[in-house]
Amino acid sequence: MAPGSDSLRPREECGVCGIFGHKDAAKLTYFGLYALQHRGQESAGIAVSDGKNIVEHKAMGLVSEVFSEDNLQKLTGNMAVGHVRYSTTGSSNIINAQPFTATHQGETTCVAHNGNLVNIRALRQELENQGSIFQSTMDSEVVVHLLARHKHLGLEKAIAETVSQIKGAYSILLMNHDHLVAIRDPQGFRPLCLGKLSNGKGAYIVASETCALDLVEAEYIRDVEPGEVVIINKKGLHSFFPQPKEKHSFCIFEHVYFARPDSDIFGFNVYESRKRMGEILARECAIDADFVMPFPDSGNYAAIGYSQASGLPLEMGMIRNHYVGRTFIQPSQSMREFTVRVKLNPVRSFLRGKRVIIVEDSVIRGTTGKSRVRSLRAAGVKEIHMLVSCPPTRHPCYYGIDFPSSSQLIASGNTIEEIRDYLGLDSLYYLSLDGLVEATGRDRDTFCLACFDNIYPVAPDLDFSKESLERG
Amino acid sequence: MAPGSDSLRPREECGVCGIFGHKDAAKLTYFGLYALQHRGQESAGIAVSDGKNIVEHKAMGLVSEVFSEDNLQKLTGNMAVGHVRYSTTGSSNIINAQPFTATHQGETTCVAHNGNLVNIRALRQELENQGSIFQSTMDSEVVVHLLARHKHLGLEKAIAETVSQIKGAYSILLMNHDHLVAIRDPQGFRPLCLGKLSNGKGAYIVASETCALDLVEAEYIRDVEPGEVVIINKKGLHSFFPQPKEKHSFCIFEHVYFARPDSDIFGFNVYESRKRMGEILARECAIDADFVMPFPDSGNYAAIGYSQASGLPLEMGMIRNHYVGRTFIQPSQSMREFTVRVKLNPVRSFLRGKRVIIVEDSVIRGTTGKSRVRSLRAAGVKEIHMLVSCPPTRHPCYYGIDFPSSSQLIASGNTIEEIRDYLGLDSLYYLSLDGLVEATGRDRDTFCLACFDNIYPVAPDLDFSKESLERG
Amino acid sequence: MAPGSDSLRPREECGVCGIFGHKDAAKLTYFGLYALQHRGQESAGIAVSDGKNIVEHKAMGLVSEVFSEDNLQKLTGNMAVGHVRYSTTGSSNIINAQPFTATHQGETTCVAHNGNLVNIRALRQELENQGSIFQSTMDSEVVVHLLARHKHLGLEKAIAETVSQIKGAYSILLMNHDHLVAIRDPQGFRPLCLGKLSNGKGAYIVASETCALDLVEAEYIRDVEPGEVVIINKKGLHSFFPQPKEKHSFCIFEHVYFARPDSDIFGFNVYESRKRMGEILARECAIDADFVMPFPDSGNYAAIGYSQASGLPLEMGMIRNHYVGRTFIQPSQSMREFTVRVKLNPVRSFLRGKRVIIVEDSVIRGTTGKSRVRSLRAAGVKEIHMLVSCPPTRHPCYYGIDFPSSSQLIASGNTIEEIRDYLGLDSLYYLSLDGLVEATGRDRDTFCLACFDNIYPVAPDLDFSKESLERG
Amino acid sequence: MAPGSDSLRPREECGVCGIFGHKDAAKLTYFGLYALQHRGQESAGIAVSDGKNIVEHKAMGLVSEVFSEDNLQKLTGNMAVGHVRYSTTGSSNIINAQPFTATHQGETTCVAHNGNLVNIRALRQELENQGSIFQSTMDSEVVVHLLARHKHLGLEKAIAETVSQIKGAYSILLMNHDHLVAIRDPQGFRPLCLGKLSNGKGAYIVASETCALDLVEAEYIRDVEPGEVVIINKKGLHSFFPQPKEKHSFCIFEHVYFARPDSDIFGFNVYESRKRMGEILARECAIDADFVMPFPDSGNYAAIGYSQASGLPLEMGMIRNHYVGRTFIQPSQSMREFTVRVKLNPVRSFLRGKRVIIVEDSVIRGTTGKSRVRSLRAAGVKEIHMLVSCPPTRHPCYYGIDFPSSSQLIASGNTIEEIRDYLGLDSLYYLSLDGLVEATGRDRDTFCLACFDNIYPVAPDLDFSKESLERG
Repeated sequence: MAPGSDSLRPREECGVCGIFGHKDAAKLTYFGLYALQHRGQESAGIAVSDGKNIVEHKAMGLVSEVFSEDNLQKLTGNMAVGHVRYSTTGSSNIINAQPFTATHQGETTCVAHNGNLVNIRALRQELENQGSIFQSTMDSEVVVHLLARHKHLGLEKAIAETVSQIKGAYSILLMNHDHLVAIRDPQGFRPLCLGKLSNGKGAYIVASETCALDLVEAEYIRDVEPGEVVIINKKGLHSFFPQPKEKHSFCIFEHVYFARPDSDIFGFNVYESRKRMGEILARECAIDADFVMPFPDSGNYAAIGYSQASGLPLEMGMIRNHYVGRTFIQPSQSMREFTVRVKLNPVRSFLRGKRVIIVEDSVIRGTTGKSRVRSLRAAGVKEIHMLVSCPPTRHPCYYGIDFPSSSQLIASGNTIEEIRDYLGLDSLYYLSLDGLVEATGRDRDTFCLACFDNIYPVAPDLDFSKESLERG
Repeated sequence: MAPGSDSLRPREECGVCGIFGHKDAAKLTYFGLYALQHRGQESAGIAVSDGKNIVEHKAMGLVSEVFSEDNLQKLTGNMAVGHVRYSTTGSSNIINAQPFTATHQGETTCVAHNGNLVNIRALRQELENQGSIFQSTMDSEVVVHLLARHKHLGLEKAIAETVSQIKGAYSILLMNHDHLVAIRDPQGFRPLCLGKLSNGKGAYIVASETCALDLVEAEYIRDVEPGEVVIINKKGLHSFFPQPKEKHSFCIFEHVYFARPDSDIFGFNVYESRKRMGEILARECAIDADFVMPFPDSGNYAAIGYSQASGLPLEMGMIRNHYVGRTFIQPSQSMREFTVRVKLNPVRSFLRGKRVIIVEDSVIRGTTGKSRVRSLRAAGVKEIHMLVSCPPTRHPCYYGIDFPSSSQLIASGNTIEEIRDYLGLDSLYYLSLDGLVEATGRDRDTFCLACFDNIYPVAPDLDFSKESLERG
Repeated sequence: MAPGSDSLRPREECGVCGIFGHKDAAKLTYFGLYALQHRGQESAGIAVSDGKNIVEHKAMGLVSEVFSEDNLQKLTGNMAVGHVRYSTTGSSNIINAQPFTATHQGETTCVAHNGNLVNIRALRQELENQGSIFQSTMDSEVVVHLLARHKHLGLEKAIAETVSQIKGAYSILLMNHDHLVAIRDPQGFRPLCLGKLSNGKGAYIVASETCALDLVEAEYIRDVEPGEVVIINKKGLHSFFPQPKEKHSFCIFEHVYFARPDSDIFGFNVYESRKRMGEILARECAIDADFVMPFPDSGNYAAIGYSQASGLPLEMGMIRNHYVGRTFIQPSQSMREFTVRVKLNPVRSFLRGKRVIIVEDSVIRGTTGKSRVRSLRAAGVKEIHMLVSCPPTRHPCYYGIDFPSSSQLIASGNTIEEIRDYLGLDSLYYLSLDGLVEATGRDRDTFCLACFDNIYPVAPDLDFSKESLERG
Repeated sequence: MAPGSDSLRPREECGVCGIFGHKDAAKLTYFGLYALQHRGQESAGIAVSDGKNIVEHKAMGLVSEVFSEDNLQKLTGNMAVGHVRYSTTGSSNIINAQPFTATHQGETTCVAHNGNLVNIRALRQELENQGSIFQSTMDSEVVVHLLARHKHLGLEKAIAETVSQIKGAYSILLMNHDHLVAIRDPQGFRPLCLGKLSNGKGAYIVASETCALDLVEAEYIRDVEPGEVVIINKKGLHSFFPQPKEKHSFCIFEHVYFARPDSDIFGFNVYESRKRMGEILARECAIDADFVMPFPDSGNYAAIGYSQASGLPLEMGMIRNHYVGRTFIQPSQSMREFTVRVKLNPVRSFLRGKRVIIVEDSVIRGTTGKSRVRSLRAAGVKEIHMLVSCPPTRHPCYYGIDFPSSSQLIASGNTIEEIRDYLGLDSLYYLSLDGLVEATGRDRDTFCLACFDNIYPVAPDLDFSKESLERG
């Protein structure tokens, strides 16, 4: 829905999109990124190849801000890769915008990466020992270095060698002057799907989510499989699996929060999985109330599921202001609910005296929820019960989700009762982990559930932390 | 809601907001306009008085674009009036931004106006015969001229004389160096409400809708009554009725479409009136379908009402892209559904094979609806039934709503069947006029229903048309 | 040269340019304004008529900032008037940008005005007594009001009546849908010249200075004469003199400072008049020094004249930084000469130990000169003598030059010796008034010399002051 | 003076400035770049170290556009290096903006480079063979790679090893977290000077030209010597010469054209060397004419010298428009002299019938000169003689000046007579090479004169060309 509309919510690292074999490659990539904007709002970039030269444009900002008719027209060629990156403060910098492009022995390579490598520090150290220098803190820069070192082996073997060295989550698009390559880690943490463009001439799209395919009217073929390398060039598409098969570890948070509801992720539609989370919530926790409602654009679909399963009416008692810019001027005097109200205003006349169930998709720090609940109280709501469509989020993610550190995760170190009191609720219930897994239509052991159960499928380096790679 | 998100929908003329007696008058007016942004996205302006001087800032653009910390800080004073204006192409020009400010004999007067005067042409002619010149095509310029001509009578009598000359719809805020005045036409076409700021020192707010009061945490006192003139100065607030009482003619379209659902309009909450439209639709027209859904941000609340009354489940089968800017780059090749899809994408996996009821708030030209329906068909929806939460809109509005001309109103000149076929629907049903009136909680004869029933409460000048006032 | 490059120097009110009978009227007007930019850097505007409709575009900023290919293309028509306005802080506001355009009885009139009316207050009062209201503080708004009141007399008589009511300095361009009119006050304070465009079909240009004609490759015909009204329409050009002849009062400061040296003003080339000021300075004041030099872009031409007449070499010992923007970041610590040096840097190696004569065009407040002199001293200059190419400027201008008030004019209230000491000079000499007049090639009594001799050719209203017209 | 004001003139590669030991290091660097803006207008960048972390900001545009109070305030630290880069079309890209910053084994290194390495292709090949990848086409990226490879030797030896590998022109500023290093090639092609800041605490500045020292009120100490490495850290400043001494090859074009006249370059003041070029021209070529004049901001100082030596008066017969932006709208119809006139307008009244000597600093392609001469003819000038203050420029530069290719240099392949005819002159004379050398105050063999005499002091790689390094 609208990650980014609330700066205290978790942030996805990135979204990727690539086009092969279409004369409007850059433009179609642009549309794909448009559809994937929810996966990253910090920077956007597109690199395009005309078979000989690679040209790129990237900048800080939203896709709609970064690209214009003018600069898109300069990106001519039949093949393109694009990238959107999340917004944060620390290392927010044009130097970290992707695709990462570099030249080695006359060959230019572009890499767009979604995920997080967990052995990045060791890899950099080794490369630096061999004389490499680094301009950014991005995983994709390391990938390009590795590819260059193995270049003499030929493209396929160089990729095989490279993926044998990297560990963690990666859905990678790689482009050189005449190949588009899609690579997904053996666990399949992040989604990546493949589609066919309708011009019927062997034109393909690879993208993080199926919603990007819809926008360019491409036909979904299949997901790039965990561990698969798909290579597309003039001869067509072929793929191979350079690494042994591994147990899958799909990120369940894509279903809970990140992916767009109109996407099918890991083979299951997100709209439906979210509705089912609500249905299972209804099964797990019946509450006597006047109606159920979401905070706009967070728990919408789970609320629908809850309403349908419980028989309680669904309402939309808070109204979103569609004209709120990314920043707004603060009041000079104390207006406690201002920051909430400028975005969401309770329908006072309707809410007064009611007993309300709020369905939320997740509670990360709790600060936003707290002020929204306070705003409902101020509007005269009598009882507020909150149902969360996932278990308590207690552990950090090493595979590409920018959760705040454990100490800032409200569920890490507080009991449910403490959280309920902090938020100012009458009651609080979290969906069970079994319930969540059931909703997503797959077996429990195909998912990474580390943020809930502290079991990390791929062990990170001991000293791993995003910050450790920052410059200086 | 999101009027303005669709350029083919009707456009409200304006929203007004004024503050009296608060040291942050300009900033509070800014917040008020922020809440009223849905009433006009073309230009925004604020004028502020410090008791001696009046300073103003206005420009083309959204409130968040027009105002910055910097330029707000220069607007110092205890009293302010602000205005947002709708977006159109014809006379879109900074010269038509409001408030309109002019000086006469050392007294500066600012006027912010919502509505439309229907005898504007005669008034201008008369004034021009007496030597007046005009810079804009705005009603508010005429009002300032009239006030100046009657100035020698004193403020109250000058206002009385002025309103005796103007005919039509007007909710006016007027400010000179030490008075804030709110004026509403005797029919009360447009809403205007009065609130008290919480600092407890006789600080007031007057605004088009109550949602503006909510944002600044003001307490709603009452509506400015039709025909009433409310004068606020240091001595406090007093009011008078300079004209004989008239039958009320509240604009029912405020309930159907314009006002924000968190506002109370003409004494009734809009969220509830819209839900009731849906409930009455369910009573009037039962359809056998799998579920009911709105197009996001148009028929949301009526769809909720329909679902609750009919027992059919509510779904949200089209997903809004939250990052669509005001313009976006067009595809070079033919992608028929592109303009729809870039904003709203159907949840294909979910919709395929379903029988769907769409609840829409209104159908103006039909072009947007047609392509949305086509987009649903392309996603595999089996049956599409549309219910519209008002009767067919067949006649122009002379009182401040910028409907397209009759020839462009699809319901004017086409039968329901023809519209159904044009939109590509399996069935189409419009709410009855009685049903609509019932939903809004008032007697039929308190409303202006001209756009539906062609009965105009105040006769416009013979040659009246907005265009006739354009320059040249 | 570069008025505006130094905010403490006097500022011209405005420049005007109009085109008749050319399909690129707006573009040619744009070029004319480009050439006249030195006369006003605050705002720029162009109005164009296609014979039926008048469209305009105006905004704050330089001509190059205000106009783009895009907005110029929308200004279609065969006739245009344009205006540039000076930059100041007080009433700097888009509301005061010109041309001033208003409509009266279906006729739109645009006025662009250079000069200052000295009975503006009385005129406004009278008009307000008759019911007029005012949006701006501009003289041009009053002119449009007067024209409207006399409209029933027909264009020529209306103009005659209007000019009989206004007193002071005015070079006016007036446009309605099918006429371009140039009007100059009987004293001829401000320049205004007439040229023929080269397309040979009766296309004309009227502009403040001949340099505007050069840029569009127009042929200079003659000046619009003092008191003359030139009317251009499809039938051609004709003129009349509605008022009795008066003694001329050409502004001598146009020669001293304002006009571009490549313009011919009042029948005499400015480059040559400035050189002659230098030659006469050499005759009046011989100084023993190593060389003579100007501060870049202020006394250049007088310095050339002085060098040629005195035989002393000319040098350019201060180097202008061509990349200084309109604002620049200030140092945090004390760097006394910074503001000077960022613009002008002394050539230290060359200047050290030298005895230098500086030729300046004028000394208004003295603050800039003081710091430039200090900067030269810091570079090791041994002796600094300053020659000013006009007499001490002691009195305000009521005819269109924005001198600071008397109290800020350093020559008003200080002796030459006091000024010399304030500036830090070894000696200071001002050109005699006779010398100045001699340099400009005309009799003394054809000039207004009020800023030097306190004799005002047209008496201003008793309470006249620019500020008195400011709003509020 | 104003390279960059004419896109057909040669372009300097870059300017560099570094500050050590001052709390406002970034701001002072900013001022230094401001003074060096004439050396590069494409991009600007500053990196700053607070002893631990290095932060940078760089972007396309002028110094005044790239930096704001806001982004300068974020650049905190006592040490900084800055860079301005020339504007061209080919590889104009943010990726090529400097300083180039990269990290290796926890150490961040920034390099700002002025000059051109002539063995860059071989160096890159070798580095790529060892696994390095490249993001830009900049020499400075290669330098950082080499430094990283030699890092284990310690800073001084790593620098010594690095400079032993690079050939060509380089004035380099290098910064890591606690050292500022200035390096100049053994031939000393490009200038680099050292100054002391006035706060008396061991604060230094290193910059391309002394004019940067003037602006920040630093005291000039001495030039960084050819072949010298100056290392500044907390212990102070020390230097060493890692390479054997070489014959000097100062770029004489710095005196002819590039450097600012208020700088001392290679021990001689540029203002004076340019005047002397004019004096020697007068000795070498006497012409009977009415006066001598420069085109504004190209031959100013040589014209002064010529005037003084010949006794012919100096005039300024073309007036520069100070408000010309970097781009301007073109006329729709044919106006042949437009592009010249919009910048420079002849003083027609003065020039008519005159015999004029133009002194120009250089003639590169001849296109601009041709149209300026035509513009003078159109103004009625009778005779036009041109004197150029350097010999014919016939050969490309491999050491950092962006001359057009030989085929575009008018003097390469045309006789003087042919050039004279192309330019439309009555006569044309170029300063002799001996005369030029004499003017610059040094022996002939201390200069690189390759662009005139085709003798290249350091042999470039066989396949060297700037373009060969472009991507793809």
